[in-house]
Amino acid sequence: MLSAEIIAIGSELLTPRFTDTNSVYLTEQLNAVGIPVMMKTIVGDQETYLEQAVRGSLERTPILITIGGLGPTEDDITRKVVARVLERQLILNDEILARIQQRFKARGVEMPANNARQALVLTGSEILENKNGTAPGLWIAGDRNQVILLPGPPSELKPMFENSCVPRLHEMAGGVAIARCVFRTACLPESTLDARIAPIYSKYKNPETTLLAKPGQVDVRLTARGKNREEAERLLRELGEEIERELAEYIFARSEQSLEEVVGLYLMMKNATISVAESCTGGMLAQRLTSVPGSSRYFMSGVVCYSNESKMELAGIPPLLIEMQGAVSEEVARGLAEGIRARSGTTIGVGVTGIAGPGGGSAEKPVGTIHIAVASPAETQHRQFFFPGDREKIRWQTSQTALDMVRRELI
Amino acid sequence: MLSAEIIAIGSELLTPRFTDTNSVYLTEQLNAVGIPVMMKTIVGDQETYLEQAVRGSLERTPILITIGGLGPTEDDITRKVVARVLERQLILNDEILARIQQRFKARGVEMPANNARQALVLTGSEILENKNGTAPGLWIAGDRNQVILLPGPPSELKPMFENSCVPRLHEMAGGVAIARCVFRTACLPESTLDARIAPIYSKYKNPETTLLAKPGQVDVRLTARGKNREEAERLLRELGEEIERELAEYIFARSEQSLEEVVGLYLMMKNATISVAESCTGGMLAQRLTSVPGSSRYFMSGVVCYSNESKMELAGIPPLLIEMQGAVSEEVARGLAEGIRARSGTTIGVGVTGIAGPGGGSAEKPVGTIHIAVASPAETQHRQFFFPGDREKIRWQTSQTALDMVRRELI
Repeated sequence: MLSAEIIAIGSELLTPRFTDTNSVYLTEQLNAVGIPVMMKTIVGDQETYLEQAVRGSLERTPILITIGGLGPTEDDITRKVVARVLERQLILNDEILARIQQRFKARGVEMPANNARQALVLTGSEILENKNGTAPGLWIAGDRNQVILLPGPPSELKPMFENSCVPRLHEMAGGVAIARCVFRTACLPESTLDARIAPIYSKYKNPETTLLAKPGQVDVRLTARGKNREEAERLLRELGEEIERELAEYIFARSEQSLEEVVGLYLMMKNATISVAESCTGGMLAQRLTSVPGSSRYFMSGVVCYSNESKMELAGIPPLLIEMQGAVSEEVARGLAEGIRARSGTTIGVGVTGIAGPGGGSAEKPVGTIHIAVASPAETQHRQFFFPGDREKIRWQTSQTALDMVRRELI
Repeated sequence: MLSAEIIAIGSELLTPRFTDTNSVYLTEQLNAVGIPVMMKTIVGDQETYLEQAVRGSLERTPILITIGGLGPTEDDITRKVVARVLERQLILNDEILARIQQRFKARGVEMPANNARQALVLTGSEILENKNGTAPGLWIAGDRNQVILLPGPPSELKPMFENSCVPRLHEMAGGVAIARCVFRTACLPESTLDARIAPIYSKYKNPETTLLAKPGQVDVRLTARGKNREEAERLLRELGEEIERELAEYIFARSEQSLEEVVGLYLMMKNATISVAESCTGGMLAQRLTSVPGSSRYFMSGVVCYSNESKMELAGIPPLLIEMQGAVSEEVARGLAEGIRARSGTTIGVGVTGIAGPGGGSAEKPVGTIHIAVASPAETQHRQFFFPGDREKIRWQTSQTALDMVRRELI
């Protein structure tokens, strides 16, 4: 049976700051086509260590994937060491060189001589195109081993692996048919969610169910294996429908879409527009809404009113209201939502105020106290929350919850 | 010189869900006593893979630390494999057995027969007491190698390592002292930066230099080793000063601070305030500035003016200007910066407009065209950029560059 090893290269990976997310991603992708990962190794920029790791892997495991060490600097050693172990030469590929030069030219910059190193390829290797960076990947197919060299930055590694490697690995693995789906849920804690669906999914070994929790979001992933596509999909549908019934309106997407993308789709479908007035999230809500390509069709404007003056100036909150109720209150959240909606002339207005910490909390209004209001033509909805965690977590949860309130408003 | 390798054992570590925090912890602890980690390996419960990993490590590295695989179940294989490689026997230690039985008894439970396996120790090994679990750790001191077997649960591993291993390792390391520093730079591409400093740092093997690049930021890390603290710091200073001279104003921090934290510090130092008017970054600039605890002292307000109407309404841009110059222009960027500064009454005003893509580009104004303006009491600075990459990358680079322009304005 096919199996793989992963070697990640870079001295920064051996410092305490670094956690390796690339290999987690690759493991998921490999497992999905039926290839288990047998070993992972992390080495620094020392050639001898990398050489031993590569030699060991080639002896015992049919597929070796390396991550990183393809950059333009002196300490990027992967090509050199793999070439040595496989007894192949490194030759300059003119086509890649031209492409790298073109990338720099497009930015009006001369290519530094260093970058020519990224156009070196092993004799007999296939080139994996890098749409998001200068270093191409390489695939060296041998009789006993497949060696795949990938760049380190996730934004380059992921599309390259999915486009150029997964289909081929899938075929090599004998075409075990895989069917997958994901249910993305918002604002349901992982333990609560698991208590609801564990009795369902634990009846099945195939599909396999995994939960991935981020603040304010849990993804439920199902992976079914079958002799053919139909079998895999039938197995997937059976469990999927049960889970979907249980989680119902907590599910905001049945694909890898983000909550902001889903909200954007609803806004476009309804021909609606949105504006936001944020205090504690400080622009995060606007930033997430506008991170979606094409969001200029529905996102009109946002204001970040941190100071009390700006709450008056930008969202028309009466000074007396802040004085009487405090800046963190239901009234101010409603005022922000209604104020920005009126000023921007949008269908929806969102108002957020709260205490993200670490300072600013009190006995009645502790750190994590959040008010969110969503104003629509029909009404203004308000909810209060107490979120745990640090500043970043509280801000994220707040933006997540506000987006989910908008989604529910639009359904 | 002493150095270490870490091998983590357990099939669950090779699934997509798992990220290894133990080895990050151990790396930190080891580095602190002057022992670098040369390699990390993760293997499943297959004896052959573990055996090869252990043999390889013993040949090249003086210290081997294994994590996990000491449990009572069949697939806990660490003791067995290490004993085989070191050619030692496993013998039942009565004292440990009694302690394990005692632990179960205290909970009113009979010890399962399986757990007797945890009382097996290698001949000649020293026992590392486990106050929080049943499996003791083991330290096997050889002529050339130190092999340390630790349990997998962090609550057991950490106290055991700190109490029974760190003091001894520190002594073995002969009080080798480590000194480190980092230079964080903004808005200089990695290859350009490297071309400037490689001629400097490549003269030195000690300190060691590593580069870590993110969009719009490159961190240069130096690690020096010395017989004592003074020597390590002297070596570090020597190279550090040369690099600092070369990179000069591109360096925004000499610590792990983010660019937004540094900008915040400058604003507080100067008793200055800031407001921002963003189009293409859609709130990212405000969000980054307000992600810093205490930012309410200098961040007053932000506006996200996506629509042309909001550029007029929120930042006072004359409709005629947008019509004549286009929303993405130097004039509008200047207008946004000056408009938000005047409206908010802040020391600094920042204006950002551009095309983040994927849509909206044209021949004269391609995707990635960005105008940034920084208005201060003295003047309004403007710069135009063409950033490569996708929407997220362009937005990030834009926010990074805008923050760096503010930093330079405040210096």
